[in-house]
Amino acid sequence: MHRSIATVSLSGTLRQKLEAVAAAGFDGIELFEADFINFKGTAAELRRITADLGLTIDLYQPFRDFEGMPEPQFHRSLERAERKFDLMEAMGAPMVLCCSNTSPLSVNDPALAAAQLHELAERAARRNLRVGFEALAWGRHTSLYGQAWEIVKEANHAHLGLILDSFHTLSLKDDPAGIASIPGDKIFFLQMADAPLLSMDVLQWARHHRSFPGQGDFDVVGFFEQVLRAGYTGPLSLEIFNDIFRETPNRRTAVDAMRSLLYLESEARQRLDDVEPVQLFSPPPVPALSGLSFIEFAADEASAATLSTLVKQLGFRRIGKHRSKAVTLYREGEINLIVNAQPDSFARGRFEAHGTSVCALGVRCDDPLAAVGRATAMRSQRHDSPVGPNELRVPAIVAPGGNLIHFVPEALGANGLYEADFILEDDGAGANDAGLQRIDHVALGLALDQLDTWVLFTRAVLGLEPGESLELADPFGLIRSRGVANADRSLRLVLNVSLSQRTRTARTLSVTGGGAVHHIALSCADIFETAAKLRANGTRFVPISDNYYDDLATRIDIAPELLARMREAGVLFDRSPAGDYLHIYTESFEGGLFFEVAQRVGNYDAYGALNAPARMASQAQD
Amino acid sequence: MHRSIATVSLSGTLRQKLEAVAAAGFDGIELFEADFINFKGTAAELRRITADLGLTIDLYQPFRDFEGMPEPQFHRSLERAERKFDLMEAMGAPMVLCCSNTSPLSVNDPALAAAQLHELAERAARRNLRVGFEALAWGRHTSLYGQAWEIVKEANHAHLGLILDSFHTLSLKDDPAGIASIPGDKIFFLQMADAPLLSMDVLQWARHHRSFPGQGDFDVVGFFEQVLRAGYTGPLSLEIFNDIFRETPNRRTAVDAMRSLLYLESEARQRLDDVEPVQLFSPPPVPALSGLSFIEFAADEASAATLSTLVKQLGFRRIGKHRSKAVTLYREGEINLIVNAQPDSFARGRFEAHGTSVCALGVRCDDPLAAVGRATAMRSQRHDSPVGPNELRVPAIVAPGGNLIHFVPEALGANGLYEADFILEDDGAGANDAGLQRIDHVALGLALDQLDTWVLFTRAVLGLEPGESLELADPFGLIRSRGVANADRSLRLVLNVSLSQRTRTARTLSVTGGGAVHHIALSCADIFETAAKLRANGTRFVPISDNYYDDLATRIDIAPELLARMREAGVLFDRSPAGDYLHIYTESFEGGLFFEVAQRVGNYDAYGALNAPARMASQAQD
Repeated sequence: MHRSIATVSLSGTLRQKLEAVAAAGFDGIELFEADFINFKGTAAELRRITADLGLTIDLYQPFRDFEGMPEPQFHRSLERAERKFDLMEAMGAPMVLCCSNTSPLSVNDPALAAAQLHELAERAARRNLRVGFEALAWGRHTSLYGQAWEIVKEANHAHLGLILDSFHTLSLKDDPAGIASIPGDKIFFLQMADAPLLSMDVLQWARHHRSFPGQGDFDVVGFFEQVLRAGYTGPLSLEIFNDIFRETPNRRTAVDAMRSLLYLESEARQRLDDVEPVQLFSPPPVPALSGLSFIEFAADEASAATLSTLVKQLGFRRIGKHRSKAVTLYREGEINLIVNAQPDSFARGRFEAHGTSVCALGVRCDDPLAAVGRATAMRSQRHDSPVGPNELRVPAIVAPGGNLIHFVPEALGANGLYEADFILEDDGAGANDAGLQRIDHVALGLALDQLDTWVLFTRAVLGLEPGESLELADPFGLIRSRGVANADRSLRLVLNVSLSQRTRTARTLSVTGGGAVHHIALSCADIFETAAKLRANGTRFVPISDNYYDDLATRIDIAPELLARMREAGVLFDRSPAGDYLHIYTESFEGGLFFEVAQRVGNYDAYGALNAPARMASQAQD
Repeated sequence: MHRSIATVSLSGTLRQKLEAVAAAGFDGIELFEADFINFKGTAAELRRITADLGLTIDLYQPFRDFEGMPEPQFHRSLERAERKFDLMEAMGAPMVLCCSNTSPLSVNDPALAAAQLHELAERAARRNLRVGFEALAWGRHTSLYGQAWEIVKEANHAHLGLILDSFHTLSLKDDPAGIASIPGDKIFFLQMADAPLLSMDVLQWARHHRSFPGQGDFDVVGFFEQVLRAGYTGPLSLEIFNDIFRETPNRRTAVDAMRSLLYLESEARQRLDDVEPVQLFSPPPVPALSGLSFIEFAADEASAATLSTLVKQLGFRRIGKHRSKAVTLYREGEINLIVNAQPDSFARGRFEAHGTSVCALGVRCDDPLAAVGRATAMRSQRHDSPVGPNELRVPAIVAPGGNLIHFVPEALGANGLYEADFILEDDGAGANDAGLQRIDHVALGLALDQLDTWVLFTRAVLGLEPGESLELADPFGLIRSRGVANADRSLRLVLNVSLSQRTRTARTLSVTGGGAVHHIALSCADIFETAAKLRANGTRFVPISDNYYDDLATRIDIAPELLARMREAGVLFDRSPAGDYLHIYTESFEGGLFFEVAQRVGNYDAYGALNAPARMASQAQD
C-alpha cells in the first residue's frame, strides 16, 4: 500500500519531519496546516523539497467548520477554500480533508450539508482537486462515519468522497462493520489511529492520547479489515495527536510509525486471504518463543567479581568460562546468567555507557533465523557479534534502547549453546542452591517516551501481548507499569515508566539510560524454603512493614499460619481469582538493579504490581 | 481554625511528610492509609513522632465500600473496621473517614446504609471514636452530600456525622447552598480541594488533578462560606490527589498548602462579617498595585555592556548611575530597566547561578509596607537589601524561584525612587526613542511543578486573577500558558510551562532555573512606527512566514492595507470581540531572553498566545 503519515504526528520543524519520514521509508505525507503556516518557504518550495525526498503530499488538512453553515459564513468559507486550493495546486496536494462541523453556528440539516459539500467539490473539480469528508467524533451534527457517508451519497459528486479515521469510530464504540458495504472508490483516504482506553472527553482524548496502531487498546486490525473489504486501495496513513510524540526525537517516532503500519498490514492480511484488493505487507510469521535461556550482564573485572559474589548468594554456581572471551556462566535450575567482562566487546561498550547492567537477553526460539527475519522486516536492526572458532553464532537483534535480544535455537536443548561456547567446569557451589528454577519475568525501566515504542516492538517483533496498564505510587511520584507476555506465558516482560523525575526508577534510568533492566524475577516452588536458603547464603531482602501484614489480613482471607510465615519471612502476597502470587525483593546492588523471587500458585497471571508501593516505600525509608 | 492536611497530598516518606507539614505550621494531619501501611513503625511510634512535631492525627482515611453491603461482606467489613479501630486507638486518631460505597455488590437502600453505619458508629462509640461519612462523586448509590446527609440523619447516632469535600460537590456542579442548613456539629470534618475545569471522568479528575484552594477554577470560597454558615468549627483540611504534588519537593508543597488555607480563610472572612463562629485568618488586605516601575537584570561587567547595546537598540537611553553600586538605569517612556553588575550583591548571586537574567521586578504600590505585611502573612519571605546613605529602602519579598519583587511607593511618583538612588545623567541617546511606553507584561518560564505555586502566589500575595489556560504547540512539545493580572490590568504576568523537556522554553529553564523571566513585552502606540525605528536602531526581529499572512487573511477580515503592512513589518495579529493585538518578537539574546513589542487596540485582554507557535516554529527553523 501507499504509506503516509500526517506531519502533526512528529516533533521538529517541517523540514526535519519530512527528512525523518523519508528516512523511515514512507511514500507520502498528510500536510497539517499549522506546519505549513509556520514553514519559511512557499508551497512550490515545499513541493520541491518533498519530491526530492521521494515523498508525495497526499492530503492537506484539516479544513474546518464548512458544511451546514448559514450565510454569510458559507460563502466566506468557500472563499477560504479557494485560497487553500491555490496552495494545494502550488504544492501538488490532490486532496483536502474537510472534517465535520463543530461550530455552534452550524445547523442540523444533512441536505444543506450535502448541497454545500457539492458546491465545494465542484470548485475543487475545476482544479482537478478532491474533497474528503470526515466525521469527527465530536462533530456537532455529524459524528459517525455512517452519517458522513449519507451526506456524501446525497451530495453525489465525483470529487467528493469519504475519509475514515479509526479513532473517531472506535472511540465512540461505533461498529465499523458497515464500512465494508461502502464502495471502495468512494473512500478517498484512510487514517489509522490506536489509543489507550481512557474515560475522558473524546476531544481531549483525541488531541493528546492517540497512538500508532498496535500501541493502544483499539481493535484497529478489525477496523482496517472492514476498509479493505470495502475494496479501498488508497493511502494507508497515520494522523496521531500525542503529547509525547510531540517531544520524542522524530527519527524514532518515524520508525515506530512505519513498524505500526507494517504490523497492521500483516495482521489484516491473515484475515483476508480470500480477497486481496491491495498488496499487504507479508513478513515472516511471529516466532514461537519459549522463555529466556540467559541474561547477560555487562561488567568490567571489578564489577564481575562483585556480581559473582552476589549471584552465588542467590544460589548460583559458576559452571563455565567462555572459550575465547572474559565471560563467565552461572547457573541455578534452568536459569543461566552470563557476566561479560570482555574488553572491546559490545558488552564493554554498554558497561562504559551504563555501568554494570543487563546488556542482552537470550530468548529460546524454534526458528532463530525466521525470528531475525521477522524482526528486520519489522524495521529492527540485526546484530552480529564476532564469533571465535567452533563457537555458535546465535542470531541477535537490537531492542529499543540498544540492548540485544539473542534468539537461542530450541534444538540446542538446555545446554547445547553453553557446551559449544564455554569450557564447562562446575565450581562445586551447588550446596548453595536455593531452589530458583526459571526466569519468571524481566522488568525494564523505560523513559516516558519509550513505553509506546516498547509495546509496539514486543507486539510486532516478538508477538507478545500487553496486559493491563497500572499506576503505582512511589513516595516521589507515579510509576506506570504494564506487563507483556507470549500466549503460553513462558516469556514475560514488565515495562515500567516513571512519570516523575524523582522516583528511584527515574534515578536508576538517569544512571543506566532508558530501556534498562530494572529487576529480574526468578521463580521457585516454595518461597519460604528458597528465601530461608537465600538469607542463609547472605542475600538481603527489602524489609516490609508489619503494618502491611495487619492490613493484608483485613483485605484477604488468608490462613493465619500462612500470614505468620509471610510476616516472618517478609514475603508479599497478591491474589487474583486465578491464583496467588508470593514474592520478595532483594536489596539493590550497583546501579539500582535488584532481583525478585516469586512463587506462582494456580494460574495467577500478573506481577504483584500492587505490592510495588510497599517495596518502593521501604527502599525510600532506608 | 485547626489546620490539617492529608498525607497523600505530599511527596516523600511518611516521616518526611510529617516534618514538612509541621515546618509549614499545620496543626494536624489526615493519615492516608497507604502511608501507614508502608511505614516502618508501629501506630504507637507514629503517635509519638507526630506529637513530638506538634501535630495531631485528626483523621484516619479512607475506609471503603462499607455501607449498603449484603452479607457476608457486611460482617467482614465490621471485622475489618475493628482492626482499623485498634490502630486508631493506638495512634490517637479520633475519627475515621468512611467514603460512600463504589462496589458493584452494594445495594441501593439508604435505610440499610443508615442501619449499617449506625452499627459502625456504635462500635466506634465503644472506643470513643467517631465515624465521618462522605459522599464520593463516583459513589455507586450515594454521590451527593445531600444523600449522605439523609443517611446520617436516618442513622441518628452521636458518633456518626458528615464529612464534606468540596471536590465531590463542585466537580458534579451540585449546589453547596444546602450545606448551610445542616447542623454544624453534625459536620465532623471538612476537606477543601480546588481543581482546574477539565472534561474528564470524575474519578480520574479526582485522583490526578485536584489542587489547593486558589490554584484551580472552583468556587471554593463559596463552598467554604456555606460550611461556616452551618456553624462548623472543626478542622479545615486539604486532601489533594495531584500527580505533580507527588513529585514536588514536599517543603514547597507544604508552604503552598498553608498559603491556600490562609487565602481561603481570608477570602471567606470578607463574606462573613455578620457571623463569626470560628476565628478566621485575617491578613492585611491585598495591596493596590499599579504596574511595573522597573525590571532589574543581574549581570557582570561584560554582560552589562552587552545589555547596554541591546537596550539602546530598543530605544532606551542611559539616564543614571547608582550612587553606591555598579548599577545602571535605562529609560524609555515610562519603562525603567536596571542593570545590576554590583559584585557581592543579591543580583550577582543570581547572575552566578542563572547567567544574565531578570532578578527583580519593581511593582508600584500605594502602601508598600502593607504589601509586605500581606506577603509575609501569606508565608512569603521578606527581603532586605543593604542600602547606602540617603538611598531609599524599597521593601521587597522573595517570589517562588528566588527572584525579588520590590514594592515601589506610588507617592514617589515616576522619578522619586530613581532621583534618590541614582545620579541622573542622560546619555543624550534620546534620538533612538522608538515610542515604547510601558511594560505590557512579563512572561515567566516555569518548571512544570511551579505553575500551581505561582497561580496561588500571585492570587494570595498580589491579588492577581488568572485567565484562561492555553496549550500551544512548540515544534518540540506543548507549552501551557496562563495570564494573571490585576483588576485594572496595569500589572500582567504570563506563566508559561513546558510540558516537554525539549522545547526552547524548557532549554531556557535548564540554563536559568525555573521561575525565570522568559520575555518582556513592552507597549507602544503605533507598532509600525516603533518597529521601523527599532529596526533602524539595529534590533532584529523573529521573521514570520509569508504563509502566516496568507492564512490570517482567510481567518480574519482585515483591511488589505493593514495586512500588507503587517506582512512587510513581520507583525503578528490577534483579534477578540473586545479589540485587537498587534505584536512582534525580538530575537533572543544570551540565556534565551527576548522582548516583545505590543500594541493593544480597544479592550483586547489577552497576550496573542495563539501566535506563539509561529514564533516558536520560526525560532526552531533558524
